Amino acid sequence: MAKFLTNREENYSQWYNDLVIKADLAENSAVRGCMVIKPYGYAIWERIQAELDKKFKATGHVNAYFPLFIPKSFFSREASHVEGFAKECAVVTHYRLKNDPNGKGVIVDPEAKLEEELIVRPTSETIIWNTYKNWIHSYRDLPLLINQWANVVRWEMRTRLFLRTAEFLWQEGHTAHATREEAIEEAERMLNVYADFSTDYMSIPVIKGRKSESERFAGAEDTYAIEALMQDGKALQAGTSHFLGQNFAKAFDVQFTNQEGKLDYVWATSWGVSTRLMGALIMAHSDNNGLVLPPKLAPLQVVIVPIYKGNDQLEKISIIAKKLKAELEEKGLSVKYDDRDSHKPGFKFADYELKGVPVRLAIGPRDAEEGTIEVARRDTLTKETINIDKAVSHVIQLMSDIQNNILQKALRFREENTYYADSWEEFRDIIENKGGFVMAHWDGTAETEELIKDETKATIRVIPFDSPEEKGKCIRTGNPSNRRVLFARAY
Amino acid sequence: MAKFLTNREENYSQWYNDLVIKADLAENSAVRGCMVIKPYGYAIWERIQAELDKKFKATGHVNAYFPLFIPKSFFSREASHVEGFAKECAVVTHYRLKNDPNGKGVIVDPEAKLEEELIVRPTSETIIWNTYKNWIHSYRDLPLLINQWANVVRWEMRTRLFLRTAEFLWQEGHTAHATREEAIEEAERMLNVYADFSTDYMSIPVIKGRKSESERFAGAEDTYAIEALMQDGKALQAGTSHFLGQNFAKAFDVQFTNQEGKLDYVWATSWGVSTRLMGALIMAHSDNNGLVLPPKLAPLQVVIVPIYKGNDQLEKISIIAKKLKAELEEKGLSVKYDDRDSHKPGFKFADYELKGVPVRLAIGPRDAEEGTIEVARRDTLTKETINIDKAVSHVIQLMSDIQNNILQKALRFREENTYYADSWEEFRDIIENKGGFVMAHWDGTAETEELIKDETKATIRVIPFDSPEEKGKCIRTGNPSNRRVLFARAY
Repeated sequence: MAKFLTNREENYSQWYNDLVIKADLAENSAVRGCMVIKPYGYAIWERIQAELDKKFKATGHVNAYFPLFIPKSFFSREASHVEGFAKECAVVTHYRLKNDPNGKGVIVDPEAKLEEELIVRPTSETIIWNTYKNWIHSYRDLPLLINQWANVVRWEMRTRLFLRTAEFLWQEGHTAHATREEAIEEAERMLNVYADFSTDYMSIPVIKGRKSESERFAGAEDTYAIEALMQDGKALQAGTSHFLGQNFAKAFDVQFTNQEGKLDYVWATSWGVSTRLMGALIMAHSDNNGLVLPPKLAPLQVVIVPIYKGNDQLEKISIIAKKLKAELEEKGLSVKYDDRDSHKPGFKFADYELKGVPVRLAIGPRDAEEGTIEVARRDTLTKETINIDKAVSHVIQLMSDIQNNILQKALRFREENTYYADSWEEFRDIIENKGGFVMAHWDGTAETEELIKDETKATIRVIPFDSPEEKGKCIRTGNPSNRRVLFARAY
Repeated sequence: MAKFLTNREENYSQWYNDLVIKADLAENSAVRGCMVIKPYGYAIWERIQAELDKKFKATGHVNAYFPLFIPKSFFSREASHVEGFAKECAVVTHYRLKNDPNGKGVIVDPEAKLEEELIVRPTSETIIWNTYKNWIHSYRDLPLLINQWANVVRWEMRTRLFLRTAEFLWQEGHTAHATREEAIEEAERMLNVYADFSTDYMSIPVIKGRKSESERFAGAEDTYAIEALMQDGKALQAGTSHFLGQNFAKAFDVQFTNQEGKLDYVWATSWGVSTRLMGALIMAHSDNNGLVLPPKLAPLQVVIVPIYKGNDQLEKISIIAKKLKAELEEKGLSVKYDDRDSHKPGFKFADYELKGVPVRLAIGPRDAEEGTIEVARRDTLTKETINIDKAVSHVIQLMSDIQNNILQKALRFREENTYYADSWEEFRDIIENKGGFVMAHWDGTAETEELIKDETKATIRVIPFDSPEEKGKCIRTGNPSNRRVLFARAY
């Protein structure tokens, strides 16, 4: 199987596409820019959803569901939001088809034109704040901590599976608060939830920080983001959390009586991650043999493959394999015993490597006799033979070892590919010839940011929260700067 | 709170609407026919989803995700499907908005007209079978057992919260098989999954059967359904499972090489339940005090309310309440201790009754001294005082007692409201004056079915699987019949 993958070092982009297709994660559909998420890909997404949902609930959030459609006029209410979101989107103009009088299928019924067009939600701030207006009257109704799992549509011109699709799946949290401080605290809390999830579950280290003004969410006062580094040296924004100030409350007239009995506008946040995380997960760890999945998100954590000739051997091996499978399952692991006789062990090995199954166990006739088993790790591609009695504890230990090892590997990769540039030549050289994260001084103006982007395609990913104060000169203009910011080319 | 509910006996329809709104389950949105599912309603839906999803996976199904949009031409491929589904639907004609040159917000950009209109999925057979074409080549690729959790849109003219909305949430299973027999078996299996779920989790008994030809899903060879009886004597179709024959395989040219090496069209099923189940759940059990929820689906199963004067009493009671809460939670129950001092116990009691919390525990100062606790059941509205030491085992027992009691109550109600009519007068009288299920003979023709519907608004709900052979005469035409079918007015 793996031989069908384009070599990662030769053509990273093609390697990614091949991998998504060959590992049965997703494919393009008949509808431009919309993907089909295949069962194996969806199983990973379900695990991402389940873990995030637990974290949202543990931080006091509840789920709800708001309409897919948003009246066109809602977008015009918040001035900067309309600029950012109401442009490239799917517009519903009619609500009925009818038989073509010429007898060729169906046509749009011109009589069924909507009075006001409906937009398929690209994000739900407007419809949700229009709803919150009726839910919030007093400080006793606050905070309102709501999340929604939903599909959204943004009519992207250039799409790539998981990374940028017209329709994608995501969650969007929308919270309402009595004070500015509480809302900012919430936006920060949720960014930390995302960062912890990325590190602890996806084994992807991230840089937390604040977006520059020009990269802010349309309608936000402040946008926080987590940025991850992919193996080709490009950055990927893995999650964002927005402090929306009172912008949406003012646009939709959502006021509350505060504890002093006075009317005030409500403070808001919103935050989201999407199926884009699938793209990050694939790109951060995988290799030329296929996917490398962190055990905590792998739909299948362990596969057992029998190596045998004839039914006698298979029977003996199967007794051992099935017992081991049951024992591992009892410990909460997801295990498959693949005794299909339609495929050779070599084919199965390659296929499970392609699919990123963290641990592969093989049992041959000699193993059966000698009480041993071969253990192969997907992350290091190493094998060892151990005593079958140790298999359960060994495999359980491997789950955390692999989870941790790929995180450490990603951390090392990021360290090795994070540069400090102090001159324009150095900066350009790194961006163009090495890739990676570049920490550099910037004069704080949108003009300079734009210049740098035009000349190098590098953007300010974030102003890292932990970037220390340090006097310096902007790499592009030489103007004074107080701290370095994180530059990179990005997905 | 409950006093705000319209009396169920006076105006059932208004009682239902009041209940949905007052119990914070859902509300109408700014978009015609689209609802907002509020957190408490969504929490119930999440439990329904979780249990169904487990059952689907236990029967070998996996989840996937297919596009929201379907090219208009796809609907014309399957002749009867287009008649049934491509009419009242949301049509996307444009993909961009632009600033109004007159400066009034945004307008649809006439330059951004789609070459082919996209339909927001009313159901996904067409887009899925167009995808399956690439997935299925050989009998080895079969069966394909896939489910999707998604939102769908049908432009209904008259909408009611949960029961009939333009957008609703559902799951749709779409399976592909090598033989007719296997596909029929799958369609039956999934109907049984729905029936078991309805009985065991929703405490709603259902009649399983086959739809008459005119009530079949558009594109199906056979439609199976489960029908439940609501407290106003009307039927509600709670789930359907369709044997689609080779119709969609032929429409989308999905052929496979069978074990004999010959090409054949694939056999299909599809099956679904939706947020309509929420409507059934609400209507089947609730009363004039509010919701009655089966414990297995109640987001909150137990609430503990302290009854006290002053902080000293509250402190003593809180120690007991918190210990009990922890013990109940350890047993897997969802428990809330409501010690808010902003509301009186009476208000809380009424509120939790409205919300359908199965068990309410109250602890007063005398209880605290004497080691007792008051236990109130939501289903029977009865109270008893028991020893606090028995509380945990008693409440656990109550969970299954209540789950079972409301099922038995619904069963009795259905028995008392199921009639056997043998003449047209009798039939009309029952339908018009009593309501309920009516088992009656029918001559098997669509014409008679239509006549009966026009004259009484009663439809054939199903031809029950367990309806015994019995010679008789059609209640409307007197023509011969071989078995009784189930009639009712329906939601």
